[in-house]
Amino acid sequence: MAPGPSSSFTTTDLRAAVSDLQLLLGARATIATAQREHHSHGESYHAPALPDVVCFPGSTKEVSAILKISERYQIPVIPFGAGTSVEGQVNAIRGGITLDLRQMNNILRISVEDSDATVEAGVTRTQLVKALNNTGLTFFVDPGADATLGGMAGTRASGTTTVRYGTIRENVLALTVVLANGRVIRTGGRARKSAAGYDLTHLFVGSEGTLGVITEVTLRLHPIPEATAVAVCAFGTLRGAVETVIEAIQFGIGLARVEFLDDKQVEAINRYSKLELTVLPTLFFEFHGMNVRDIKDQATMLQSVAAEHSGKEFEWKTSLEDKDKLWKARHDAYHATHALVPGAEVLITDVCVPISQLAECITQTRSDLANVSFPATIVGHVGDGNFHVLCVLDPAHPSQREEASRFSERTVQRALRMSGTCTGEHGIGSGKMKYLRDEHGDALDVMRTIKKALDPDNRMNPGKVVDLA
Amino acid sequence: MAPGPSSSFTTTDLRAAVSDLQLLLGARATIATAQREHHSHGESYHAPALPDVVCFPGSTKEVSAILKISERYQIPVIPFGAGTSVEGQVNAIRGGITLDLRQMNNILRISVEDSDATVEAGVTRTQLVKALNNTGLTFFVDPGADATLGGMAGTRASGTTTVRYGTIRENVLALTVVLANGRVIRTGGRARKSAAGYDLTHLFVGSEGTLGVITEVTLRLHPIPEATAVAVCAFGTLRGAVETVIEAIQFGIGLARVEFLDDKQVEAINRYSKLELTVLPTLFFEFHGMNVRDIKDQATMLQSVAAEHSGKEFEWKTSLEDKDKLWKARHDAYHATHALVPGAEVLITDVCVPISQLAECITQTRSDLANVSFPATIVGHVGDGNFHVLCVLDPAHPSQREEASRFSERTVQRALRMSGTCTGEHGIGSGKMKYLRDEHGDALDVMRTIKKALDPDNRMNPGKVVDLA
Repeated sequence: MAPGPSSSFTTTDLRAAVSDLQLLLGARATIATAQREHHSHGESYHAPALPDVVCFPGSTKEVSAILKISERYQIPVIPFGAGTSVEGQVNAIRGGITLDLRQMNNILRISVEDSDATVEAGVTRTQLVKALNNTGLTFFVDPGADATLGGMAGTRASGTTTVRYGTIRENVLALTVVLANGRVIRTGGRARKSAAGYDLTHLFVGSEGTLGVITEVTLRLHPIPEATAVAVCAFGTLRGAVETVIEAIQFGIGLARVEFLDDKQVEAINRYSKLELTVLPTLFFEFHGMNVRDIKDQATMLQSVAAEHSGKEFEWKTSLEDKDKLWKARHDAYHATHALVPGAEVLITDVCVPISQLAECITQTRSDLANVSFPATIVGHVGDGNFHVLCVLDPAHPSQREEASRFSERTVQRALRMSGTCTGEHGIGSGKMKYLRDEHGDALDVMRTIKKALDPDNRMNPGKVVDLA
Repeated sequence: MAPGPSSSFTTTDLRAAVSDLQLLLGARATIATAQREHHSHGESYHAPALPDVVCFPGSTKEVSAILKISERYQIPVIPFGAGTSVEGQVNAIRGGITLDLRQMNNILRISVEDSDATVEAGVTRTQLVKALNNTGLTFFVDPGADATLGGMAGTRASGTTTVRYGTIRENVLALTVVLANGRVIRTGGRARKSAAGYDLTHLFVGSEGTLGVITEVTLRLHPIPEATAVAVCAFGTLRGAVETVIEAIQFGIGLARVEFLDDKQVEAINRYSKLELTVLPTLFFEFHGMNVRDIKDQATMLQSVAAEHSGKEFEWKTSLEDKDKLWKARHDAYHATHALVPGAEVLITDVCVPISQLAECITQTRSDLANVSFPATIVGHVGDGNFHVLCVLDPAHPSQREEASRFSERTVQRALRMSGTCTGEHGIGSGKMKYLRDEHGDALDVMRTIKKALDPDNRMNPGKVVDLA
């Protein structure tokens, strides 16, 4: 139970804190190695880092009490949801108290009339969607992983439906947040808009636990569309696929999802998910509309745009089973790529650029892959200008990790040159802090000022996003 | 040129500051009384308050230089756009330097491919819309007044199209901001989404010049819809009109605008704008679609919803002229009401509630109007849950202002009880600071902490939103 080398607290303080935590939570505060190991990492290649103690609070009040203990002994606090983040957000790199919020999994309120819901931070995306059964409403933000809604808010997550329904940022109305000193605040509100004071809600969304702990989230819901349709279209060229999307967005064609997969990714999911897609650059489309005719209008327009850009015929997925199978395959893209090399680790990039730059950015990135020794696939939420390269690294060739890091760095710098961002949806964690100055310039100092004002002790998920150490 | 009673700077400091400002700007820094008077108020009943000096900077660099002078002599700075705010946002209640940003009126960049544009803060909404002619794109956020885009970002403005296109908050991608110490930062970026660090853009949007001065705004644009249609529908009851909107939103009917006017408002605009609308509670609808059929589907659904709620037949406005006339009349609602009493002053409320509460909130508010001695009309962006009561106060009866204040207070408290906000779109200014604690509780202290961190001298539009004095 000795604090790690970069921790600033003493063993004595830690012991006292653990004793206070166990008094508060009983067995829900644990120093068991298995729990500490389980909570030492997300789904990424970043070096695991064990917290000293893992707590499972059951309420905002308990989170508040834990933060007071953290303050008393100056022990860091790391919020933990489903552990699906990929930039080292949950790794306890300075040791401390990991707050596993999954026991806070109550859906507190669903209002069908107002199309909103309030949930505890540990409720997962699929849990909420299931609870909305028979309401006519659903929650669309969909990062693939079954993340917790607190985690999604914390990392400003998005996913396949963002092109139509926005990221979590556009879908969070209000938050309950516990501050570094244990005070509980409520930000935002249930009105659809407000001009009443500073927008704290959106300051906490994406702050990755570095300014406070999100314990409740009020979310916008959307009506389930009357009609949906799903199509697959293969393209002669990668550029043709991407340019189809650019034009579709510019024409205002109402796409609910538009996902790009390069030929290598198609090959990988064919194998993993037992599909028989043509091995070419491919788009998966989903249309949402008031009725079938509405959708047909959109699809017809899009088919003619695609045809001008080397697109083949649309292949329609009509049964619910076929649609689900296709989207499941898309969500399993990561696992499909991972399976290319037994025992591989996967480094995943996440740049996002203005859509006019997207074809050029993906093309250059794809060319750059000719220079690396590892296999890689490309998938993308192309309607948003966002794509991922999944680099499959063989542990038998440890130099590949360094090689992949350099590739990732080149990808980020390319996106920044094209007025893009180093992360569309995965967040900063510890992995991308080095790019924040390049991307934000002096605005980074303002982020630092805010961090200092709200977390003067640098106890809230230290070493992530903006670090005061 | 003696500083006002609540100012903290000395006459000597002010003189030195004015001298520095004139050295920097020449005649564009003026102490002329006419200019000071012109800049002493927005469009509201709040007591005018003259700045000591008015500056007309031409660039971000000049704004930065002015803020350094403000810092040197500890003189407040008040940003001023079109002067159309209604909660006292621009009144120089502690004296100081008013920054009139209207000379910063360059449209810096329009990207048709990316559907975005960057403008200087002094560009007005209609100037931008005009510049977008022949691009196939437009800018939809529409507060009625021809506000500057910097002012709209600063006050988190919205308007008639928010139900479909969002408020300015959802349409600002990036900002250039000059901080209290004169440093210039760029927040956000041109990628459609990003998870890279704290969301400073949305912290400055709605901060009303109290954290920094917005000098450039990057905005999302939208394709002009292929087909639009406008209809008017009168209702037997106020509640029927509002319930029609609630159901339409719940069904996901794609409304681009839905504006409510009570019978008194209809009467006022009939007179002012020479219309012949039936004097009943009324909704104005606008539909946007890919084609006429698409719109007809929506309109048919909506007509049947309306019919179940005391709605009469839709009256369609088909010519461009008739459409424009109707929306101009809606935008002139304020002037129409104002004209009811010669020489009147108008106090306008601005609450916003969850839509399930809207019918009850408007009904109760309307009943409350039976208790007051002044005439009043009600208009609302009802798709968002937002409505305004326009109280027409006769200067010949000065007690009406106090009466109207009490009415406004009751309206706000009613909205807060219904989980609403004290301001949907007009902002806080000096007029609504008293409600922030009721609405936000301890979160107000976090706003204060942020204000203190970014503006430790309390020089940025002091006495508005969050005041450190």
